[in-house]
Amino acid sequence: MGSIPITLSSEKKKKPNQDQLEFGRTFTDHMFVMDYSNEKGWYNPRIMPYQSITLDPAAIVFHYGQTVFEGLKAYLTQDEKVHLFRPEKNMERLNRSNDRLCIPNIDEEFAIEAIKKLVHLEKDWIPSAPGTSLYIRPFVISTEAYIGVAPSKTYQFIVILSPVGAYYKEGINPVKIAVESKYVRAVPGGTGEAKTGGNYAASLKAQELVAGSGYAQVLWLDGVERKYVEEVGSMNVFFKINGEIVTPSLNGSILEGVTRNSVIKLLKHWGYTVNERKIAFEEIYNAHKDGQLEEAFGAGTAAVISPIGEFSWNEHKLVINNGETGEVSKKLYDTLTGIQYGTEQDPFDWIVEIND
Amino acid sequence: MGSIPITLSSEKKKKPNQDQLEFGRTFTDHMFVMDYSNEKGWYNPRIMPYQSITLDPAAIVFHYGQTVFEGLKAYLTQDEKVHLFRPEKNMERLNRSNDRLCIPNIDEEFAIEAIKKLVHLEKDWIPSAPGTSLYIRPFVISTEAYIGVAPSKTYQFIVILSPVGAYYKEGINPVKIAVESKYVRAVPGGTGEAKTGGNYAASLKAQELVAGSGYAQVLWLDGVERKYVEEVGSMNVFFKINGEIVTPSLNGSILEGVTRNSVIKLLKHWGYTVNERKIAFEEIYNAHKDGQLEEAFGAGTAAVISPIGEFSWNEHKLVINNGETGEVSKKLYDTLTGIQYGTEQDPFDWIVEIND
Repeated sequence: MGSIPITLSSEKKKKPNQDQLEFGRTFTDHMFVMDYSNEKGWYNPRIMPYQSITLDPAAIVFHYGQTVFEGLKAYLTQDEKVHLFRPEKNMERLNRSNDRLCIPNIDEEFAIEAIKKLVHLEKDWIPSAPGTSLYIRPFVISTEAYIGVAPSKTYQFIVILSPVGAYYKEGINPVKIAVESKYVRAVPGGTGEAKTGGNYAASLKAQELVAGSGYAQVLWLDGVERKYVEEVGSMNVFFKINGEIVTPSLNGSILEGVTRNSVIKLLKHWGYTVNERKIAFEEIYNAHKDGQLEEAFGAGTAAVISPIGEFSWNEHKLVINNGETGEVSKKLYDTLTGIQYGTEQDPFDWIVEIND
Repeated sequence: MGSIPITLSSEKKKKPNQDQLEFGRTFTDHMFVMDYSNEKGWYNPRIMPYQSITLDPAAIVFHYGQTVFEGLKAYLTQDEKVHLFRPEKNMERLNRSNDRLCIPNIDEEFAIEAIKKLVHLEKDWIPSAPGTSLYIRPFVISTEAYIGVAPSKTYQFIVILSPVGAYYKEGINPVKIAVESKYVRAVPGGTGEAKTGGNYAASLKAQELVAGSGYAQVLWLDGVERKYVEEVGSMNVFFKINGEIVTPSLNGSILEGVTRNSVIKLLKHWGYTVNERKIAFEEIYNAHKDGQLEEAFGAGTAAVISPIGEFSWNEHKLVINNGETGEVSKKLYDTLTGIQYGTEQDPFDWIVEIND
């Protein structure tokens, strides 16, 4: 698998109990690191013991947020194979994010090889209980010690791994979503379609404000007219209206989700009409009033499919499908997770297997 | 000056030659650090040798850009006094930025005491050549090792110092500015009025694209209509039209500059009419065409006043005041720097002196 030297950790951490896994708090024994300088390009790829990062306090990442990341998962099948789901899509997006943030591109195939090699080394960390997985977090940080506002001349590309529990502990379950009217996540011409820290920093406040009132996440409206649906929390969003599926078109401020793309492909494969277009939230409100809003769901790597049981929008409450999981949401969830865990056919060759 | 313990550096760095100072590359021997946890609040303030920061690779700052910063300067007067310029304004803004980014507030008076104590310890680092100063960079980073999208439970507040050269090596000098039509810096409801990394990350691409064509910075238009003037690079912007001064009003997406505020106060003190309002760039274009655009300038901590000699806007080029520094720009520059270096009266009590 190429020339990535491995330095093994002398101590192995105790693995957490599989039914107590929390998202993003526990990390495995090793990490992948690669450096960049203007002179050498990307160099010195290596797998090494998971360890702290040491940076000058003037490192650009601490001041100007020049950073990008990705998120994907490794799944353990019942016959102990290790699956990745469309990792090439994540690496394509990583480079689109890099372009927007003035970070040098990374060889996508090499990055996937590095991820495979790291996951393979940490295979014992992939939990086997239903719905669990090993979350993979590739990210780039700007490391130059320079507080002028300019792209960094040095970077690190790092991959860390975190075993994660089932998103739905007691079966797929709808969430309540608040439509956000004050805060804006992104705007065309900004960084909304890049997976970069600033978008997530900008989202914290709205999320914090709704969390206390029983809402799981916010639905973001566009930053220009404050009318059109963008995304839900950190997921893309879909609606089933009168038998037809609609989702916001990619407009430069929406993140192009890998799950979004997979949902559209599956739905079309099943014969559904899928329209990617501008959707005013008022249209959703009217469809609900007319009894035509049959389902709504988020799509993202963490939850795969997250059915939406209720929207709050100003003084209105829209209960969808009696607050229960809809048929299409359920079928998408079962099919996607089935493909990921190897219990369903993979008609689009989405699975990349990590071989011994 | 309160209970901030000092651990002195055992080695002193060689100070750079005063005529070779570059912005933001050289840092002094010591730094101020204070920690935060949900249990303890802000605790353990200390001055220690300038040293690397060691963080878990899962630290939130590396992934979600939850970070804020400030920038101000210490000036050495001819009689060896040390001046800060309105530091309370920076600390007020730091807390406004903290609010937007879900970072706990910092005691503003205590932060100023910490800055005073650190600058006093590093007094020998303040350069004395005309126009030079000691740049002060307070910043907050989110340090919790957790890759869920949520505010960090731990932070560090750090202050580092960097001796900086004169912004204008050969006297105040106009710059060329390109009006940016593709990329957007910020939008109301976003983070534009907070001093947070993501805004600067978002600005890199546009800056990189114009830098090759002889433009010093870009002028940002509003993200909604792409018509109205927001700011220039990392400065606020002012225009003198037919004897009257106009500057964009604070609309939630513009940074509230300390220099901006000081410029407005000085101009009103001198009897000028200053209008803070929405300004379409087309209005600037028309004023120029009619011969009424007398001056344009940026205002910010780095340059103090940066006269604008030319705008490019689509296919148009607007040369202002024959590309020379205007009278008001020059008077503001001379007065503000005079107050900062103690050669001019300080009618508004802006200077905070650091006493032995």
